[in-house]
Amino acid sequence: MMKIQNGEKLLFIGDSVTDCGRAAPAGEGFFPALGNGYVSYVAARLFSAYPERLIRVVNKGVSGNTIRDLKNRWQADVLDVKPDWLCVMIGVNDVWRQFDSPAMPETHVRIGEYARTLDELMTITAPTVKNIVLMTPFFIENNPQDPMRAMIDEYGRAVKEASERHGTHFADTQAAFLRVLRHNYSAVIAWDRVHPSLNGHAVIGDAFLSAVE
Amino acid sequence: MMKIQNGEKLLFIGDSVTDCGRAAPAGEGFFPALGNGYVSYVAARLFSAYPERLIRVVNKGVSGNTIRDLKNRWQADVLDVKPDWLCVMIGVNDVWRQFDSPAMPETHVRIGEYARTLDELMTITAPTVKNIVLMTPFFIENNPQDPMRAMIDEYGRAVKEASERHGTHFADTQAAFLRVLRHNYSAVIAWDRVHPSLNGHAVIGDAFLSAVE
Amino acid sequence: MMKIQNGEKLLFIGDSVTDCGRAAPAGEGFFPALGNGYVSYVAARLFSAYPERLIRVVNKGVSGNTIRDLKNRWQADVLDVKPDWLCVMIGVNDVWRQFDSPAMPETHVRIGEYARTLDELMTITAPTVKNIVLMTPFFIENNPQDPMRAMIDEYGRAVKEASERHGTHFADTQAAFLRVLRHNYSAVIAWDRVHPSLNGHAVIGDAFLSAVE
Amino acid sequence: MMKIQNGEKLLFIGDSVTDCGRAAPAGEGFFPALGNGYVSYVAARLFSAYPERLIRVVNKGVSGNTIRDLKNRWQADVLDVKPDWLCVMIGVNDVWRQFDSPAMPETHVRIGEYARTLDELMTITAPTVKNIVLMTPFFIENNPQDPMRAMIDEYGRAVKEASERHGTHFADTQAAFLRVLRHNYSAVIAWDRVHPSLNGHAVIGDAFLSAVE
Amino acid sequence: MMKIQNGEKLLFIGDSVTDCGRAAPAGEGFFPALGNGYVSYVAARLFSAYPERLIRVVNKGVSGNTIRDLKNRWQADVLDVKPDWLCVMIGVNDVWRQFDSPAMPETHVRIGEYARTLDELMTITAPTVKNIVLMTPFFIENNPQDPMRAMIDEYGRAVKEASERHGTHFADTQAAFLRVLRHNYSAVIAWDRVHPSLNGHAVIGDAFLSAVE
Amino acid sequence: MMKIQNGEKLLFIGDSVTDCGRAAPAGEGFFPALGNGYVSYVAARLFSAYPERLIRVVNKGVSGNTIRDLKNRWQADVLDVKPDWLCVMIGVNDVWRQFDSPAMPETHVRIGEYARTLDELMTITAPTVKNIVLMTPFFIENNPQDPMRAMIDEYGRAVKEASERHGTHFADTQAAFLRVLRHNYSAVIAWDRVHPSLNGHAVIGDAFLSAVE
Amino acid sequence: MMKIQNGEKLLFIGDSVTDCGRAAPAGEGFFPALGNGYVSYVAARLFSAYPERLIRVVNKGVSGNTIRDLKNRWQADVLDVKPDWLCVMIGVNDVWRQFDSPAMPETHVRIGEYARTLDELMTITAPTVKNIVLMTPFFIENNPQDPMRAMIDEYGRAVKEASERHGTHFADTQAAFLRVLRHNYSAVIAWDRVHPSLNGHAVIGDAFLSAVE
Amino acid sequence: MMKIQNGEKLLFIGDSVTDCGRAAPAGEGFFPALGNGYVSYVAARLFSAYPERLIRVVNKGVSGNTIRDLKNRWQADVLDVKPDWLCVMIGVNDVWRQFDSPAMPETHVRIGEYARTLDELMTITAPTVKNIVLMTPFFIENNPQDPMRAMIDEYGRAVKEASERHGTHFADTQAAFLRVLRHNYSAVIAWDRVHPSLNGHAVIGDAFLSAVE
Repeated sequence: MMKIQNGEKLLFIGDSVTDCGRAAPAGEGFFPALGNGYVSYVAARLFSAYPERLIRVVNKGVSGNTIRDLKNRWQADVLDVKPDWLCVMIGVNDVWRQFDSPAMPETHVRIGEYARTLDELMTITAPTVKNIVLMTPFFIENNPQDPMRAMIDEYGRAVKEASERHGTHFADTQAAFLRVLRHNYSAVIAWDRVHPSLNGHAVIGDAFLSAVE
Repeated sequence: MMKIQNGEKLLFIGDSVTDCGRAAPAGEGFFPALGNGYVSYVAARLFSAYPERLIRVVNKGVSGNTIRDLKNRWQADVLDVKPDWLCVMIGVNDVWRQFDSPAMPETHVRIGEYARTLDELMTITAPTVKNIVLMTPFFIENNPQDPMRAMIDEYGRAVKEASERHGTHFADTQAAFLRVLRHNYSAVIAWDRVHPSLNGHAVIGDAFLSAVE
Repeated sequence: MMKIQNGEKLLFIGDSVTDCGRAAPAGEGFFPALGNGYVSYVAARLFSAYPERLIRVVNKGVSGNTIRDLKNRWQADVLDVKPDWLCVMIGVNDVWRQFDSPAMPETHVRIGEYARTLDELMTITAPTVKNIVLMTPFFIENNPQDPMRAMIDEYGRAVKEASERHGTHFADTQAAFLRVLRHNYSAVIAWDRVHPSLNGHAVIGDAFLSAVE
Repeated sequence: MMKIQNGEKLLFIGDSVTDCGRAAPAGEGFFPALGNGYVSYVAARLFSAYPERLIRVVNKGVSGNTIRDLKNRWQADVLDVKPDWLCVMIGVNDVWRQFDSPAMPETHVRIGEYARTLDELMTITAPTVKNIVLMTPFFIENNPQDPMRAMIDEYGRAVKEASERHGTHFADTQAAFLRVLRHNYSAVIAWDRVHPSLNGHAVIGDAFLSAVE
Repeated sequence: MMKIQNGEKLLFIGDSVTDCGRAAPAGEGFFPALGNGYVSYVAARLFSAYPERLIRVVNKGVSGNTIRDLKNRWQADVLDVKPDWLCVMIGVNDVWRQFDSPAMPETHVRIGEYARTLDELMTITAPTVKNIVLMTPFFIENNPQDPMRAMIDEYGRAVKEASERHGTHFADTQAAFLRVLRHNYSAVIAWDRVHPSLNGHAVIGDAFLSAVE
Repeated sequence: MMKIQNGEKLLFIGDSVTDCGRAAPAGEGFFPALGNGYVSYVAARLFSAYPERLIRVVNKGVSGNTIRDLKNRWQADVLDVKPDWLCVMIGVNDVWRQFDSPAMPETHVRIGEYARTLDELMTITAPTVKNIVLMTPFFIENNPQDPMRAMIDEYGRAVKEASERHGTHFADTQAAFLRVLRHNYSAVIAWDRVHPSLNGHAVIGDAFLSAVE
Repeated sequence: MMKIQNGEKLLFIGDSVTDCGRAAPAGEGFFPALGNGYVSYVAARLFSAYPERLIRVVNKGVSGNTIRDLKNRWQADVLDVKPDWLCVMIGVNDVWRQFDSPAMPETHVRIGEYARTLDELMTITAPTVKNIVLMTPFFIENNPQDPMRAMIDEYGRAVKEASERHGTHFADTQAAFLRVLRHNYSAVIAWDRVHPSLNGHAVIGDAFLSAVE
Repeated sequence: MMKIQNGEKLLFIGDSVTDCGRAAPAGEGFFPALGNGYVSYVAARLFSAYPERLIRVVNKGVSGNTIRDLKNRWQADVLDVKPDWLCVMIGVNDVWRQFDSPAMPETHVRIGEYARTLDELMTITAPTVKNIVLMTPFFIENNPQDPMRAMIDEYGRAVKEASERHGTHFADTQAAFLRVLRHNYSAVIAWDRVHPSLNGHAVIGDAFLSAVE
């Protein structure tokens, strides 16, 4: 049963996987403001299945963001918007910079800072936002020994723990992609294993929808 | 139960509602070749739900086409491609020109020619293409007395009759939109009542998926 | 008999139907500053018919505006410009957002606020501007039961009442379009029923000219 | 009384003053195919005044054309299109090149060739096209002793004679502009005295309409 | 004998005829900073004839300027640059607006204001700038009774009087063009009779050079 | 010792890794015709180290090519150019399509066809081209069990065998990248593990140079 | 005394120094068809000094041309145009490629071929073209021992000899630049010593004018 | 033996030869931030040869800079970045302006100011930056009597003296180019003798690498 009710407002926040060319600053409205990723896919599926609910969707993804950036804009982009549902997917840049820019430590957000900041944000948000969905970051790689995949898994576990500690909904996007990778090589979905094609965004979106049904 | 099997090839043909900026001439492949309408929505939902089936999707929509244009490119764009599934949605331009260009009769495709051509195409195609899905054209208008809506309904009935005569699958997109219009004014989906937003494309795509499950 | 006299200044204010790509901020002058809608059509007809009058035309339309926006810029864009003739056509966005963005109530300008604001603006303007022409907003739809048409009619009646209360000239653009729609489907003039082709702008312009002759 | 009847097709042919950015090759249809000069002005006025007549308008102007060029494309662009009304305005380039490129005689179309070609075209066209309107070329200059104005007047007289000899309708655009120039300097309408602003196109269009009423 | 000496700095100021796409703000230097009008023509002729003098040329023309605009930027664009030679050609926009925008009196700079401002500028400049060349504005029209030509002549006379009163060099560009117009129609040089082709800029440049030799 | 002699011509052929934006059709000359990948890196290192040798470098890479495409253009792009040195690196697209487009078998070039075609090309080329360098294709992935890496290794072995059979020079680019991957994650060099940054092109270029010294 | 008479046609042919962005294919006419180099400078000076002569100027320069290219297009671009005056300046690319592309001998036009081709062209042209001006190529370098300067001087001597042998006019542009270089370093005129600024084009143009006066 | 150690940061500062389209303001990072000149060439060679060292490279070149500009941004662009290695190549604009803009003395940085400023910068930097490499500016001209080459040599000597006085590493790029010019004319490397092709950047880069090995 779909838990999102009539007239409720959903806010998605995250990095480039969420952003996908959304309109700025608003990220909602009649014109194609939701970008062309999983956020607009979710909005479309909800509209088609529940046209009577008048669900409102807002996209606040920003390309390149880490959880450090989310913290800086949390008041303006989350709390001030007063969503009924808040969905957060963050972490791939926190990890990626450690792998593609090893010589630039100031761009790295290590697991300690990541887990601590997520906890902090949930602590201040949980009292005022009725429903929260935490989604793991993901890396579209089938080999669990791959160093970046292994580190993303660690960040995903931190998301899971935060979800349990704060009693939020939870969607495991890494698990959703692993189900697909049993039958497909990663290149089917994303050459860089990070930015999925529309097919991959459907995998994310369906994982989100499972979490709220 | 999903009727599309492992490794089957789906071909969608139609007008601008199908086209949606697809790549030309191929209309398939790794890069975003399927456009941003219901065809890529259907492909994404199939991929996410049936990642093991390796279903192949081809988009052969061309903006502005009437059934007269489809007939001209049928050999090259349908028969030569040898699809396992053929999905046809055509007719809105056949009707629209009668309403927006009344002084240019050479652009009008009247119901007789429309029904006759559709029958002809099905007669030559049904023997060689295993599965055919005929979809009605649609006009996102709630008032059945509206002259253009009334005429589209007539073209939709011709599609239904052709579907029954030739034993094809059938998707009633007009009915799908009417279900949505019970709760929403047409402007929510399309200012011009013809080219839907992504939300509207999900309505078409879900109607298609219902027809093949 | 043309009521606009030698050397008088006409100011048109409104939304995208008035704007039509006019130059900003000035909206007048030798270069094509008046946009390509009814304002430049009116200017051209006046020039051709009354070349000796040196009538001055200013376009202050802004796309997307509601009457709330007009109020905000009334001092700068109307009173400070000191027109001899003021022509106002506003309201379609006030209504449209209620139909295309039902989940975003902050964008809706309901009839109460609309009528009240119009009355307010007329009260402060009528003493200083010699001639005022109030034009109804319009929706190019023949069916009076259509919900958006019905609501536009209601806003049009508010314009008519304000016109009578403040003794202004009055042009009923909705009536002018209905005369055309007796012989033509709405799509001849505008696919979205709001932004007319040049043919439709002539209908508006001729309605304006009738009001000042 | 408007002489253009229900469903009749008007074809305008000429140079850049007629062309004005019209669509090519067709020069008609729903999209803004008529350019932004007197042709679309005439179409708009006819539509607004006679919405029930479904008059069809075609623009076949080509920038830079002289009557030599018209002759070359007469079969394809006039006779094959089978208009009910044919409107011709040509000659300014025939004259202008004699004044701006005096050293390039191969670009000059002198009065003898001009008058002879016009006569030829009328001889072959009058039997098959029901209504013809010949319009003089014009030069927006008030001084009849100006050499280029004097020569344009000569070409205009040739148009008048052809009109009388072949019994066509006639519109004297030069006279229409002179009426305006009694109150305005030429720069109000056109810096180069050849390509008018929209205000000037209304002068041409109104001259045409007078000729067919 | 060329009066411009080794290492001297020439500053040209004026409107679009001077500007001609010059670099801003500097208007000098190795790259093509002088625009493509008479200023670069003069610089090129001086360089070719006097390569040993290292003459420095600065272009401070601004399109659309009237003498009112020159006054506003006189300190920054003339006095602060400390030229050895100052060349001023201004006035065509002061006059033109009276002819192309008769209904916008705020854009007109009438002869009184023009002559007074020129006198004012000369009074403050003559003591500090060693050499001044005043050039008349011009209108490329052979007929002295043409209203705009007549008015330009009046402004030219004001320039001549200022030149005599303040003892400056003087170049009569109108006279230079009249010499050309004895053999050529104005359209050979400029369709709008204001902005000359390169051929016309040579006429201006040669008039300037005659004044300083 | 550098084996490339005075005045010798090097021709590089391959796919996008070779192409890198080179000029077409020529792929050589004074202007930056060699693209910005390993070919221009090699040319620059040769120039700096052996400025006296006047070595000529030609780039004939074409993005997206497989060995099937090389065969089609071998006569025109290799034999007709008569190089002294021929360097071939091909195969990543032959493999990649099997992984990113599994449903499109017509785009796959399997190992049998690959090895056979390479052998064929060497058989016809070795008699006429003095020096040949065969380079393995590569996939910047450290895990030898990764399916695409495993397949690239197989294609690389086919290159090695062809090199031995035909007695050509040989450069193992995969080995060169594995040396780098001992200290760096693949993302340092290429997000998609196929198109390297300039740093990665230096790895390829240095592998080539080792093979010819 | 200027030798170019009333109504005569001048044709300039050469390489990029002549081309300078001229219009193609015609290279003449009202619009800025002559490019922005010495050809338009000469045209402008002639017009300003001899406005009564109606001299016609055609630019047939093509960037990158050598004398080999001129030969290929001589019939179409010179003989068919039937000039009264033919001006040829060619050779810098014939030389330059020997210096910037030493490894590409097929791009070099050595002195033997150069002199022979020039002689050939003059032999077929001198009988039909009344006046010919041969101009030397140039290299803006003061040091006669510079290898490229030395070679250009050699080509210039070949031009001089051809001029004497065929009795043409002659302009020594290299000498003209050397006069300038006595007082200026080459960088004042051209960073690459080949493509001059407008100042340098005036030097060429003045050398041409001296030759025809 | 390579002196640059694990994890050290190299900062290059200079003019357009260093800049080469680098990203601003950062000049480092995963994306191609280092431009396409010798800085990225050096980074690529270091990466390929020492992949285990994780050397960090920063490009702070700015086109058009003289040593005066370096001084103005020294604190922000050098000292605040805290490099382990600082490499400076500056001076060609200091010299070039004296040759291409002789009439604009305010753009000239003469040898006294140059040497004094370099000394000043070294005095404040040497105590805090562990390793400094001073590179001479260069002019790709073989003739030592050429006036600009002679002056560049003088500036190069000032760099050498500063290097000796402050005990820095030193790279003589002029000497490196002279070695190349023994076999090649300057045009092979740079038409303007200042901005080298990639081949020329390799010459600079190899000179740098020699200095740090």
